[in-house]
Amino acid sequence: MNQDERAIRELIATWMSKSAAGDVQQVLPLMAEDVVFLVPGHAPMRGREAFAAGFKAATGQVRMQGTSQVQEIQVVGDWAYCWSQLSLVVTPLSGGSPVHRAGNVLSIFKKKPDGAWVLFRDANLLTVVST
Amino acid sequence: MNQDERAIRELIATWMSKSAAGDVQQVLPLMAEDVVFLVPGHAPMRGREAFAAGFKAATGQVRMQGTSQVQEIQVVGDWAYCWSQLSLVVTPLSGGSPVHRAGNVLSIFKKKPDGAWVLFRDANLLTVVST
Repeated sequence: MNQDERAIRELIATWMSKSAAGDVQQVLPLMAEDVVFLVPGHAPMRGREAFAAGFKAATGQVRMQGTSQVQEIQVVGDWAYCWSQLSLVVTPLSGGSPVHRAGNVLSIFKKKPDGAWVLFRDANLLTVVST
Repeated sequence: MNQDERAIRELIATWMSKSAAGDVQQVLPLMAEDVVFLVPGHAPMRGREAFAAGFKAATGQVRMQGTSQVQEIQVVGDWAYCWSQLSLVVTPLSGGSPVHRAGNVLSIFKKKPDGAWVLFRDANLLTVVST
């Protein structure tokens, strides 16, 4: 595993832990300013600010804990793609039953001029699964 | 637009027209032998043969006609990603009502040693939409 692949794996691990902690300020630097998130049934969500607004709205209502298993990473110069399998448990803060969402994610990462990798495009195919 | 981007756009156009014609033999060379298709709610579909079997089963029951609008293509050496918006009308051959499916697709393409581009990874986020 080379340095770039290791950096992307660390980015994903940091993303998961900071998300679980509800710490959006630590998650935002992990994505490009002009990031685009694609999910089924919705228009593309564009930009860090839209992510931050959605994240804050969600963390006011639920706690999210997840694990990500990288299936493959391919680095080509300052670009990379990663296919991972994501499993999320979404627990309402009001005390309702947790919902388990799982599925594949295909992501494009980009290396910034300062050498840091950021998420650039993200196709999230998670669906609710029975646990 | 450079030659590689043009080749990928032509691949997508050929894919759409040959799929609509039900001509799986013309579609198969447009993907890598070890292609992986990701869709919500299902295990990854791996390889040309699995695609061919699924395609033949589908075209025995429905006619599929679609349009693909490329949102962006990024070519880096022998790799590329493409974000497109896909719209499909699936019409049962038995005469039922057509179903409209639409959504985003994030795809990874790879250039073979012979210079031809093929689909390598594909995350398809289509959902049923009301028409």
